[in-house]
Amino acid sequence: MTELSTAVPGAEVTLDALPLREDLRGKSPYGAPQLDVPVRLNTNENPYPPPPELVADVAEAVRAEAASLHRYPDRDAVALRTELADYLTVSTRVVLSEANVWAANGSNEILQQILQAFGGPGRSALGFEPSYSMHPIISSGTRTEWVPVPRRADFTLDTAAAASLVAQRQPDIVFVTSPNNPTGGSIPLDQLRGILEAAPGIVVVDEAYAEFSSQPSAVALIAEYPAKLIVSRTMSKAFAFAGGRLGYLAAAPAIVDALQLVRLPYHLSRLTQAAARAALRHADATLATVAKLAAERDRVVEALLGLGFTPVPSDANFVLFGQFADARAGWESYLDHGVLIRDVGIEGHLRVTIGTPEENDAFLEASKEVPR
Amino acid sequence: MTELSTAVPGAEVTLDALPLREDLRGKSPYGAPQLDVPVRLNTNENPYPPPPELVADVAEAVRAEAASLHRYPDRDAVALRTELADYLTVSTRVVLSEANVWAANGSNEILQQILQAFGGPGRSALGFEPSYSMHPIISSGTRTEWVPVPRRADFTLDTAAAASLVAQRQPDIVFVTSPNNPTGGSIPLDQLRGILEAAPGIVVVDEAYAEFSSQPSAVALIAEYPAKLIVSRTMSKAFAFAGGRLGYLAAAPAIVDALQLVRLPYHLSRLTQAAARAALRHADATLATVAKLAAERDRVVEALLGLGFTPVPSDANFVLFGQFADARAGWESYLDHGVLIRDVGIEGHLRVTIGTPEENDAFLEASKEVPR
Repeated sequence: MTELSTAVPGAEVTLDALPLREDLRGKSPYGAPQLDVPVRLNTNENPYPPPPELVADVAEAVRAEAASLHRYPDRDAVALRTELADYLTVSTRVVLSEANVWAANGSNEILQQILQAFGGPGRSALGFEPSYSMHPIISSGTRTEWVPVPRRADFTLDTAAAASLVAQRQPDIVFVTSPNNPTGGSIPLDQLRGILEAAPGIVVVDEAYAEFSSQPSAVALIAEYPAKLIVSRTMSKAFAFAGGRLGYLAAAPAIVDALQLVRLPYHLSRLTQAAARAALRHADATLATVAKLAAERDRVVEALLGLGFTPVPSDANFVLFGQFADARAGWESYLDHGVLIRDVGIEGHLRVTIGTPEENDAFLEASKEVPR
Repeated sequence: MTELSTAVPGAEVTLDALPLREDLRGKSPYGAPQLDVPVRLNTNENPYPPPPELVADVAEAVRAEAASLHRYPDRDAVALRTELADYLTVSTRVVLSEANVWAANGSNEILQQILQAFGGPGRSALGFEPSYSMHPIISSGTRTEWVPVPRRADFTLDTAAAASLVAQRQPDIVFVTSPNNPTGGSIPLDQLRGILEAAPGIVVVDEAYAEFSSQPSAVALIAEYPAKLIVSRTMSKAFAFAGGRLGYLAAAPAIVDALQLVRLPYHLSRLTQAAARAALRHADATLATVAKLAAERDRVVEALLGLGFTPVPSDANFVLFGQFADARAGWESYLDHGVLIRDVGIEGHLRVTIGTPEENDAFLEASKEVPR
């Protein structure tokens, strides 16, 4: 071991010896464990692989683009944004143009750009916890003060109280995740309106799981709140494109202009743009999995109830459930059964992603045996 | 027109009406004009398209990956980093491991991560101007104070004076671009040592154009300055992979650990990782263009001298040249001749990327006619 490590230049220097930003000291990188386990139900991926026609189309699109790899991509990704606008127009029944849409390498980069443009030192972002844990992390990464507000004990959001609190705290940015990750509930439009009315600045409705939800999209509210509302989306979940890294948003054109002031030039590669466009051409096939997953989610919830667990009602492709005396011990026991789920740090609870029927059966079998 | 714009939700809101970060007000997005012109010599791309074997290999690699697009990519990109380390080991003769290498969506994202980890509010970054204009832009984007230091009138860097200034100003980060963009000169290792000795914090040697240079890479100095030195690289130029967006760096392993604290999880897609690995397998073929371009660069410099211009000596795949009474008028005249070059904002000068022999001939023909 000594011989190997001396061969790595600079291996003797430790993280503590570096002039790291003070607030990063002692931190660990974000991310679920990537373990090689038979049944992986931990990161809310779509369990259905892309259909062969999509794989072929992505490969052909990339082959055509690869001949121009020596040239920078379209910096504004106009063709991709136009097709994303078309998808949203069809799925939300709100007519959007490419001027309403922006895209980036995953919704994390979308959120980072929003915080770079509208947050930063001396500004604050407020969110209702537990929610997507990247919201506070990206806020911190952009030096935006994070203001956590607790949800009700049953994980629902008291939107009237939320609106009062927003009016009182005057955050520059409000995050509302709908359906909420990791708890699963959606917010109806009239309740979102209350928060939008109260907010002095930007409201980001994070709709990463929108396709699984029974509630209409907040895209319908852009015309009412053009200077406030940003709806963020991803192709990672319903579109089964987590490996392709494509996040996007819908908002007023001026908000898209604002993000172009902070985006890194040429942030979206030719391959990403071409592959995402190919995936969008197969939206009907991919999104056909959404109904299957929603039905499986309802089956899993019923079965968990039957086993005496307390699943939280979900509008997404995952279910938060309790009650564990020791959630960490429960998580480890699932892992021992070959089922990787997620310990999201909520006392007594674990989160399971809805998989294929076979994967869900394996999870439910293990559920009979894990310690509670 | 009125009818069309009312159909776009939120089109009535202007950028000024948004709660934008104060320092972004009045700014324009960064980026060279992307114009449809016969001869494009403006963004330092490699003019040679990828060879058919590389295109086929990229398409095959992507086809194989596309079957797993529903799953997140390897968050740590270990296979790609290992192969980048192998490439650097062969090309710099410094044995590196994957622990020394980090990768991102273009070197812009690499630089942004460096500034997020080691810069930020209350910290400063110093650079020697004129240089790569994204250094101050990304510093500003991360709220790092930018300290510009002028180069000599002939655009060379007085490294002894630079070291004194670094010792005096105590910046948290120093940027040294070698070869320098847009002026073309490289810094020898012993002169880099002077700056590294003087620097209290991080020194980023931006080697985007290293493959074109006659000087050895700063990678050789990592073992001497493991807590200070980061060498950033890109596949956009010599590797003819600008459309693929792959930047990387070499440094001590602890610096790679530090960047993992600020990177967005899953920032590099499956497609990017697979395509970059395929491109690396064809490095010999792609890098064979480097010698051709260096020879063409020398020919263009000679021809410009013959025409009475004053080209700046270059170690890269571009040449800064004067003297124009009005650089903007000169740039427009080239454009009228169907040749797109770059006005980098240096009085009396323009920058031309070295293209194919035919493209360079078109540029030289136009050079006979443009107003000076």
